[in-house]
Amino acid sequence: MRTTVGIIGAGPAGLFLSHLLHRRGIDSVVLERRDRSYCESRQRAGVVEHSVAEALRASGVGERMDRDGFVHEGIELRFDGRGHRIDFPALTGRNVVIYAQTEIVTDLIARRIADGGRVLFDAEATDVEGIDTESPRVRFVADGSEEVLECDYVAACDGFHGVGRSALPTDSMRCFDKGYPFAWLGILADVAPSCDELVYAHHPRGFALHSMRSESVSRLYLQVPSDTDLGDWPDERVWDELDTRFALRDDDWALRRGPVTDKSLTPMRSVVTEPMQHGRLFLAGDAAHIVPPTGAKGLNLAMHDALLLADAFTSAHTDGDTSGLEGYSATALRRVWRAEHFSYWMTSLLHPAPEGSDFDRRLHLSHLDHIVSSPAAATQLAENYTGLPRV
Amino acid sequence: MRTTVGIIGAGPAGLFLSHLLHRRGIDSVVLERRDRSYCESRQRAGVVEHSVAEALRASGVGERMDRDGFVHEGIELRFDGRGHRIDFPALTGRNVVIYAQTEIVTDLIARRIADGGRVLFDAEATDVEGIDTESPRVRFVADGSEEVLECDYVAACDGFHGVGRSALPTDSMRCFDKGYPFAWLGILADVAPSCDELVYAHHPRGFALHSMRSESVSRLYLQVPSDTDLGDWPDERVWDELDTRFALRDDDWALRRGPVTDKSLTPMRSVVTEPMQHGRLFLAGDAAHIVPPTGAKGLNLAMHDALLLADAFTSAHTDGDTSGLEGYSATALRRVWRAEHFSYWMTSLLHPAPEGSDFDRRLHLSHLDHIVSSPAAATQLAENYTGLPRV
Repeated sequence: MRTTVGIIGAGPAGLFLSHLLHRRGIDSVVLERRDRSYCESRQRAGVVEHSVAEALRASGVGERMDRDGFVHEGIELRFDGRGHRIDFPALTGRNVVIYAQTEIVTDLIARRIADGGRVLFDAEATDVEGIDTESPRVRFVADGSEEVLECDYVAACDGFHGVGRSALPTDSMRCFDKGYPFAWLGILADVAPSCDELVYAHHPRGFALHSMRSESVSRLYLQVPSDTDLGDWPDERVWDELDTRFALRDDDWALRRGPVTDKSLTPMRSVVTEPMQHGRLFLAGDAAHIVPPTGAKGLNLAMHDALLLADAFTSAHTDGDTSGLEGYSATALRRVWRAEHFSYWMTSLLHPAPEGSDFDRRLHLSHLDHIVSSPAAATQLAENYTGLPRV
Repeated sequence: MRTTVGIIGAGPAGLFLSHLLHRRGIDSVVLERRDRSYCESRQRAGVVEHSVAEALRASGVGERMDRDGFVHEGIELRFDGRGHRIDFPALTGRNVVIYAQTEIVTDLIARRIADGGRVLFDAEATDVEGIDTESPRVRFVADGSEEVLECDYVAACDGFHGVGRSALPTDSMRCFDKGYPFAWLGILADVAPSCDELVYAHHPRGFALHSMRSESVSRLYLQVPSDTDLGDWPDERVWDELDTRFALRDDDWALRRGPVTDKSLTPMRSVVTEPMQHGRLFLAGDAAHIVPPTGAKGLNLAMHDALLLADAFTSAHTDGDTSGLEGYSATALRRVWRAEHFSYWMTSLLHPAPEGSDFDRRLHLSHLDHIVSSPAAATQLAENYTGLPRV
């Protein structure tokens, strides 16, 4: 099998890249080790940055997002028993769209298939070869038989544990990472959201997040220790703890409860791989970087990587101009490190540190109070949250 | 001896408070354990916030500051071999005045004496008694004999190790603190400043600060380990290390060298005592809170405490309205915690953490880059640095 760009992984980065390349007349093949229904149902992020939403619309895959997604013009920061709204348009002129990553994946798969694109499910990439040559190859297994995808370029969009990342020569790459002593316990519940916007709550007992997937599905998270056993968290305990952390001092705001349909633990980790490329192999999305979910940047970084790569592959393939590809990693990493810093910052801001001192707790409250008192501080949060413009 | 307000400590807080009270017709006595020349020569901070400079002028002691001090409209952040200016008036409409704390002390002593004020040098307070009564007393030793100062109120402006702070009942106070694994090695040098403004340099080898005391005296600092022995730092080594940390990539900017007239180690510590009062005893300045010097907030917090206390004592003494005194600690602590957070933030921003990972170092650079790229982020720094308006 042969194509121009071999793409490993049918997550948002791989699918969006394949879709963008198709619109520019460039052939690609997507190899995905899971089946289609798995890809279309795995629960991930749900906040789409302003410029990513615009890019989806501009490439003709924004229709369902604009119909079923929610445009959010702010978030609430809740601490010390009080809520404070951060108004995105007033501070930055931008907003975000609440639309689940799994829906974006569903839209992109449908569109690739409708456009005759080759998205191979149950096709597990096992090796990437020849990345220092002009004809790299991806070995993969499909239907029990070994096959080879020959390409001009390989885009590894297969996550942190994917084969793409491991094909980078270790002596030319550096990996930066940071762990956190807590995780997120997340639930999906068949109940209408308890308010219209996301609520980020800082409470002495830990962080909590109120979010939503649709008008009838809520998505809620609790900060828990990293080694938490989900068996210790029956639904009732989760709801009670959420109630405690969201409680308002002067208001009997209550969380609506409903059947829990999914319960999972999200680890918190920061990782950056540098450079994000070697020879003809290019990394995008989680294959190159991981952010803790607090800043809602994982999906958005993946989509920005795909946008950059689509431009770079197009210039190289169509005009023979390889400068975009050569500079891909350096360009992408500027946004990546900004997002890494913001994600770390939001995480530190909202999560009480288990090992923190009383002094740290007071600093925390002073910092939160500053953000909701100083327009400059609020703007800084809002401009990062809604996403920096495309470069 | 008897007075209305007994003030312990002839630092900026105590002297400014005594001066402000005099202007409102309220009698005070300042007890200072050191002699006058010691007070007029100890090297401390030198950045006066916009509103503190205005308060000095408004109370008639700004003349020499306005003649000999320098109005600074910005600072330079230097990292990764490049300099970036933060323009204070453009971002906040405010500026700062570079004028040494020791000069403010000199001005205030001269003024108190010219006004007939009682500032007792070589008078060491040894105990504060009766703070739960309406007639507290300060015991002190002067000329080898024990004396008693009887007052209506006591203001402890005698620093972290002073007798005032230790007179607070321990069961009603909380002390919050944080240490840092580094210190500042500071020099005074008889040489003209190497540029017109302060330069805050973040370098992989450590933080460095270029500052000045006058047109012919430079004040320079280096981040060093907390356990540094000054004997290991002959002048030549200090200058060489400063050169390394201030080096610019595309410019052969060089530090002017001159005779070093003072060399000292400044420890870095954050401390807040809550509440800042009990009964008729009120703490101000370092007696109540310590900040690391990076944010230049120590002197300014002390002056703001004095301003608040002067208003509160005046209302209580003149109109019998004690609400200002009752609310003193709560009001002061809002500014204190803002300054504590800013000082911690500036310190973390500019000092490479000795135990930091490669990830932390990259975050650092991304954070610095954000501050000089985002007007909102720069505004946040500038509005804290130049000082929040008086409350």
